[in-house]
Amino acid sequence: MSADKKYILTISCPDHTGIVAQVSSFLADQDAFITESAHFGDPVSDRFFMRTVFTPGPYTPDAFELAKKFSRVAERFQMVWGIHDAKRKQRLLIMVSKFDHCLNDLLYRYRTGELNADIPAIVSNHPDLERLAEWHDIPFYHMPVSKENKDEQEEQVWDLIENLEIDLVVLARYMQILSPRMCERLRGRCINIHHSFLPSFKGANPYRQAHERGVKLIGATAHYVTGDLDEGPIIEQAVERVDHTYTPDKLKAVGRDIENGVLSRAVRAHVEHRVLMNGLKTVVLK
Amino acid sequence: MSADKKYILTISCPDHTGIVAQVSSFLADQDAFITESAHFGDPVSDRFFMRTVFTPGPYTPDAFELAKKFSRVAERFQMVWGIHDAKRKQRLLIMVSKFDHCLNDLLYRYRTGELNADIPAIVSNHPDLERLAEWHDIPFYHMPVSKENKDEQEEQVWDLIENLEIDLVVLARYMQILSPRMCERLRGRCINIHHSFLPSFKGANPYRQAHERGVKLIGATAHYVTGDLDEGPIIEQAVERVDHTYTPDKLKAVGRDIENGVLSRAVRAHVEHRVLMNGLKTVVLK
Amino acid sequence: MSADKKYILTISCPDHTGIVAQVSSFLADQDAFITESAHFGDPVSDRFFMRTVFTPGPYTPDAFELAKKFSRVAERFQMVWGIHDAKRKQRLLIMVSKFDHCLNDLLYRYRTGELNADIPAIVSNHPDLERLAEWHDIPFYHMPVSKENKDEQEEQVWDLIENLEIDLVVLARYMQILSPRMCERLRGRCINIHHSFLPSFKGANPYRQAHERGVKLIGATAHYVTGDLDEGPIIEQAVERVDHTYTPDKLKAVGRDIENGVLSRAVRAHVEHRVLMNGLKTVVLK
Amino acid sequence: MSADKKYILTISCPDHTGIVAQVSSFLADQDAFITESAHFGDPVSDRFFMRTVFTPGPYTPDAFELAKKFSRVAERFQMVWGIHDAKRKQRLLIMVSKFDHCLNDLLYRYRTGELNADIPAIVSNHPDLERLAEWHDIPFYHMPVSKENKDEQEEQVWDLIENLEIDLVVLARYMQILSPRMCERLRGRCINIHHSFLPSFKGANPYRQAHERGVKLIGATAHYVTGDLDEGPIIEQAVERVDHTYTPDKLKAVGRDIENGVLSRAVRAHVEHRVLMNGLKTVVLK
Repeated sequence: MSADKKYILTISCPDHTGIVAQVSSFLADQDAFITESAHFGDPVSDRFFMRTVFTPGPYTPDAFELAKKFSRVAERFQMVWGIHDAKRKQRLLIMVSKFDHCLNDLLYRYRTGELNADIPAIVSNHPDLERLAEWHDIPFYHMPVSKENKDEQEEQVWDLIENLEIDLVVLARYMQILSPRMCERLRGRCINIHHSFLPSFKGANPYRQAHERGVKLIGATAHYVTGDLDEGPIIEQAVERVDHTYTPDKLKAVGRDIENGVLSRAVRAHVEHRVLMNGLKTVVLK
Repeated sequence: MSADKKYILTISCPDHTGIVAQVSSFLADQDAFITESAHFGDPVSDRFFMRTVFTPGPYTPDAFELAKKFSRVAERFQMVWGIHDAKRKQRLLIMVSKFDHCLNDLLYRYRTGELNADIPAIVSNHPDLERLAEWHDIPFYHMPVSKENKDEQEEQVWDLIENLEIDLVVLARYMQILSPRMCERLRGRCINIHHSFLPSFKGANPYRQAHERGVKLIGATAHYVTGDLDEGPIIEQAVERVDHTYTPDKLKAVGRDIENGVLSRAVRAHVEHRVLMNGLKTVVLK
Repeated sequence: MSADKKYILTISCPDHTGIVAQVSSFLADQDAFITESAHFGDPVSDRFFMRTVFTPGPYTPDAFELAKKFSRVAERFQMVWGIHDAKRKQRLLIMVSKFDHCLNDLLYRYRTGELNADIPAIVSNHPDLERLAEWHDIPFYHMPVSKENKDEQEEQVWDLIENLEIDLVVLARYMQILSPRMCERLRGRCINIHHSFLPSFKGANPYRQAHERGVKLIGATAHYVTGDLDEGPIIEQAVERVDHTYTPDKLKAVGRDIENGVLSRAVRAHVEHRVLMNGLKTVVLK
Repeated sequence: MSADKKYILTISCPDHTGIVAQVSSFLADQDAFITESAHFGDPVSDRFFMRTVFTPGPYTPDAFELAKKFSRVAERFQMVWGIHDAKRKQRLLIMVSKFDHCLNDLLYRYRTGELNADIPAIVSNHPDLERLAEWHDIPFYHMPVSKENKDEQEEQVWDLIENLEIDLVVLARYMQILSPRMCERLRGRCINIHHSFLPSFKGANPYRQAHERGVKLIGATAHYVTGDLDEGPIIEQAVERVDHTYTPDKLKAVGRDIENGVLSRAVRAHVEHRVLMNGLKTVVLK
């Protein structure tokens, strides 16, 4: 293996004595050098989660061979696992509606390389953000959606996802609810930004709800999309202090910055293979 | 009036042209010197809120006369108002159960003078915290409560509130729900600390609920007590970042510090006459 | 005066009894309706600061007449004051070098109208960010600077400032030190973003300094530019938590987001006439 | 080894391929079950840091034997290492002057068991806090210090440290500078709380310095004490937002809460063996 390669091994399995030892010995035996590693044993679910970054040495077999060898270790511990090429950019499809702040923020981070990702497509049910996409040289697909054509539109989106070999769908204020079928197809690889500190203020108009309740902090939540609206596993949240002088509009303006930060951190954690599922919750390994 | 006196004028009324001018002219005419002032006009409820701190000058009449004169201004604008002696310590009754962190924190701030308050009584349905009260030389009333004696016990508490001329009741993790009658009697002068970021995780065991939902921040909320459980006007909130490694017990430990900070800030804002009611919300004037 | 007008009155003067009364009575007498007001008396410098937003009524004279009348009040109290048209957009000149994050962020907020400002010019000593300026339809001036041409280049910049009637110069990571003469000319209307929590890590390479010292938080500071490098009056600061795993590069990436937030909040406070000078410090009125 | 035992292994050494594998294999071979583990390879200093918590199994040798066996691994990698009994409470000596907030906070956390520590002595150069010590049943040593008796007093303190087998000295606002000799003796086991966000505002009166500079955030820093005043390795820092209305006294009041939080988190990290030295910096392993 060439020296400038880097891999990320992710593992999730029932907790047991000796897993760390087995995995790290395996890697040492394959002449791999661990540069980062984090793990967590959940005493409640009794499951073990691990993320290990390693660089191959002169005697490390190639990725295919390595995976084949590792599968023997994996089987013994009933692991759900993956060996990911850390240098391969994840392929994102971003879905938007008319709000552009999250898109603008993600594109900035994409452009600076802060986000280890390619963005082969932006999909929107409105034409408004086409010019922004263009400026970043990203193909923009205008796919209007209505009650009548929803199934059909989702099939179009799905075709795009398959044809472009998309790894992750990002709902960057898409403002549409995906069908249960679509949620199922995208399980674990579709991130939504909800503009409230969930589980507070589910559903529509969270900033108005927040204003009416008179909360002293407002927030945003990035979560995986599931069929259960606003109940998917939470990846990242943040809040900012507000007070009685904030109108719903000013809450929205503050909220935009929170949403940007939360969504971009969630996407980054996902593309760096840091997020592992633990039932209805996530383990985000540093 | 003597030069070392200081007063706080609080006002709430329908919004109108000229209120600030009228009030500040009135004070200037009475030879009073404004040292602090804050106001807020809510464009939604169309109500005006004001808090003004002033020191009397040589020609300022005494408090009683001043109030009599001000009542003419107040009537014209349909003001709910008060002139409070800023140097008079508010009298608090603290109610606790077995958890001692909020009590310990409040007593420390009381002792250092950070809280402009006297604490003539601590009431508990358990005897556990008597020694802590004793050390601070504060009378401790053990008033056990059960389904059977609840009405009676509340009457005892009420008698204490009346006899000791209590200004504010603080439920410092009291863990009991007050009767609607008691809530009504204490409207606007009873603060509770709820150990979650409301409206998330109402009701019992919020830290367990937070753990189950997998939130990435936990919080606490100080609010006025109303008959509508966990729905009273919010005074102050705060959160801290947590992650998947936090067990419910560790959440509780982090939560203790948040609760302490939130409750003490809410109590301080109240005793400094900074909190005004705006329907089901509060205006907290800096 | 037409009903959709809005003015901001700012005042700074020696503290005295009756200022608030005089000012608010004056406005009431002129049929003006105060919608926002904040003031602060500094017990240390013994100076008084005020910001009042008002809308004119049917009998309010026009701005010129109003100012003339107010100047009599102002004289009595030795006020430094201004009456600003709240709807007039402030004119910003943004100066950049090669880093684009602050520029990108400011332009986004400019485009959404979150920043009440026009940006008639972007000046840079490098050509790199021309395309970004172009996309936002803002004239880009490439004005290279060297030891030899520094005076001359600053004169070019100054001409631009005068010709374009610039209100505020924003150094959005300009990376050049302005001459004392230029600092003097721009006193109180040139904001710089320094990429550390001042007074920590003054001078060059603050992220490397922060990494070497092993601090657990990094920050950014927006301040008015003065001849005394990194010592100008601070307008806004913020920090984020970091740890031992952060390389200087990762600190920079985190720092970018902090810088964006801090600089945009400082610029917004300035263009909304919220920032008043108090010696070497600022008063930022909410 | 008995099943309710728990150990913490800490390691610091030059970075190398295979360390994690060697250590985890060693523990697996000794029938130990890893419950927590964190490590970090610093690419700058090229050093490796590790903290592993494990419970012994039926075939794990006793601690003495285990350490003997491990020393062979340790030697090969030039490790600085330790195997610590996680259930053994660390023994703290707290040194104070007249300020009681940090002491009060530490004692509260000690009493609730949140701090895994015993406190066999409190030393002060003033008698003021004796009653607080007494209430917590902790011996209080009044050891006045002056220019004349400084060496002698430090010897007394040192004797106490030796006789009571103190693990960690906590300067909880002790307000005295330890001699270079004392700093050397306590290297790596003496934590000080400095009431500013270092490296800002070193030396005396940091709140007054902060007030004069007009910073918008104030902070506190917990660090190991070295002969180089206020330059010791930083363990933990935090800040809070302030504004122009904060007098030096109000800054102090806000600062007390920050100091409490920062110092208690630093002490907890130390007694849980999470803090490892990396030159003049710390690695704090989660």
